[in-house]
Amino acid sequence: MTEPRLDVLAIGDAIVDVIASAEESFLVDEGLVKGSMRLIDAEEATRLYTHMGQARETSGGSAANTMAGIAAMGGRAGFVGQVAGDQLGEIFAHDIRALGVEYRTPPLGDSASPTGRCLILVTPDGQRTMNTFAGASHRLAAAALDPDQIRGAAILYLEAYLWVPDSPREAMLEAIEIAHRAGRKVALTLSDIACIAKRRDSLLALVGRGAVDLLFANEQEMRSLAGEDDFDRALAAFCRDVPRIVVTCSEKGAIAVEGRRRVEVPAAPVAKVVDTTGAGDLFAAGFLFGQSHGRSLEESLRLGSLAAAEIISHFGARPEADLGALVAS
Amino acid sequence: MTEPRLDVLAIGDAIVDVIASAEESFLVDEGLVKGSMRLIDAEEATRLYTHMGQARETSGGSAANTMAGIAAMGGRAGFVGQVAGDQLGEIFAHDIRALGVEYRTPPLGDSASPTGRCLILVTPDGQRTMNTFAGASHRLAAAALDPDQIRGAAILYLEAYLWVPDSPREAMLEAIEIAHRAGRKVALTLSDIACIAKRRDSLLALVGRGAVDLLFANEQEMRSLAGEDDFDRALAAFCRDVPRIVVTCSEKGAIAVEGRRRVEVPAAPVAKVVDTTGAGDLFAAGFLFGQSHGRSLEESLRLGSLAAAEIISHFGARPEADLGALVAS
Repeated sequence: MTEPRLDVLAIGDAIVDVIASAEESFLVDEGLVKGSMRLIDAEEATRLYTHMGQARETSGGSAANTMAGIAAMGGRAGFVGQVAGDQLGEIFAHDIRALGVEYRTPPLGDSASPTGRCLILVTPDGQRTMNTFAGASHRLAAAALDPDQIRGAAILYLEAYLWVPDSPREAMLEAIEIAHRAGRKVALTLSDIACIAKRRDSLLALVGRGAVDLLFANEQEMRSLAGEDDFDRALAAFCRDVPRIVVTCSEKGAIAVEGRRRVEVPAAPVAKVVDTTGAGDLFAAGFLFGQSHGRSLEESLRLGSLAAAEIISHFGARPEADLGALVAS
Repeated sequence: MTEPRLDVLAIGDAIVDVIASAEESFLVDEGLVKGSMRLIDAEEATRLYTHMGQARETSGGSAANTMAGIAAMGGRAGFVGQVAGDQLGEIFAHDIRALGVEYRTPPLGDSASPTGRCLILVTPDGQRTMNTFAGASHRLAAAALDPDQIRGAAILYLEAYLWVPDSPREAMLEAIEIAHRAGRKVALTLSDIACIAKRRDSLLALVGRGAVDLLFANEQEMRSLAGEDDFDRALAAFCRDVPRIVVTCSEKGAIAVEGRRRVEVPAAPVAKVVDTTGAGDLFAAGFLFGQSHGRSLEESLRLGSLAAAEIISHFGARPEADLGALVAS
């Protein structure tokens, strides 16, 4: 096994976030569930966008945000995700490369699907409600993978958002094979309860056959995948098959479980929660950076908490503060 | 003369801002003059963008920002500016309409010029250095004007940025004719010393023939147009031809001159200057709103200062705080 060239390579949605402030009443009028993520089609994207307020655009995508965070901390990160050959695709590619993330996926050759976007409504309490028009992102295919790039990364990081559509799921299954054959680790984030509901059987099968070395989830996702209301029982259900599990619990902090060992850290303090978009993504970034750089389980959790605290203190899911200073502390 | 339907209708650049943080050393390496605005072509836009850091995109354009500010204060504003039929054009049109600004200019029918963008580098001191690829924006033509819309606005507001390219300048000259024939007022902002240098003769001719009822400038622009180092003499040079002149003096505040009357206000305090992009634009918004709503000269200047203070306290040149509360105070 050769020395890895990258700390982490992620496969995920390649999406531009369109972020607007919204009152609670707007969510009610639109019939949206606060804090949720839903997939929408082009028509609904146009309709909702027309009703939304003035927005700001920043590159997003859950796993892409995580890689941006790792690069901002000084780690070596790569990303695989599908954009179209349009202006939003150029913005996505520029931003992720500008952070030093290796990004080689060529844009789609046809114009049938534009680059995906996520219409994010941020209420005054900082909660985000996401409406994703996936577009080109869900057309990621196994042919877009670079096996050498996968073999060159210590950890392959996958997001469950992309486990729902067929073509990207098949690409991820192939990537898992390549990574494991090269002796690399595979990490999975459960992303969202709606994704779990749609693909619970295949996610359980994946975890059950020991294909996931590191699992990220929040409390609700953990319970949902286990089909178990009690959190501790839900966690216990996966401890046998998954060597390391990390669960984020919002303002209560986070937990890591490694076999019989269980470590907890409190959430890092935040002066004002502006926009919670990307909190889980950046938590994963801090944890993965720590694990890739010889930090302890506890220290890795602490880095996750600090990175998450930075991201929720401003609009957008990409880091603004110097995360390099954060990891040096 | 019928009652105006709009308080202000602006003609200006229709542009999306691409804002990235940059160190002073980046400006030095790129040979850029801090605080300046320069026009760049498509090739240079691509080259510079590749070197810039991760960015956020928000709708911009100087006069468009001013109209956004007026609408955010509860005023009735309209905007005329040229975008292309692309994703950035959709973003521009969405954002200005989402604020309640009347915007009817159809996108260009061909794909020869993409929607304009302004690559903005913000240094740690909050100063912005702007690199504008004008694209479709400089293809605004007189044919895109709606004479009824112009006749329906109490004030026609023009930006000198668009006085440089031929087609938009001709459109603005036609708009001035229509407005004056309908008994409306014409306001002009001098925008930038580079614009003045390129079109000094025709700007002086415009002012000299009494076509400008209200002139906005900063100290440097005032001196540049007058060709006079002494500020008071520069101001005096235009007092005969322009009934009302407003000059912004950054942290020193602002001055309004109406015939022999001269009113000054200090700058409103700002806790932290994050990004000065749009300070002049929002000052004009506050002043124009005040003038359209029966406020005194002094009170209009004060509204300008408050709106400018809001905009420089965050990234981007469009208001985030509730400017309606500001005008009610």
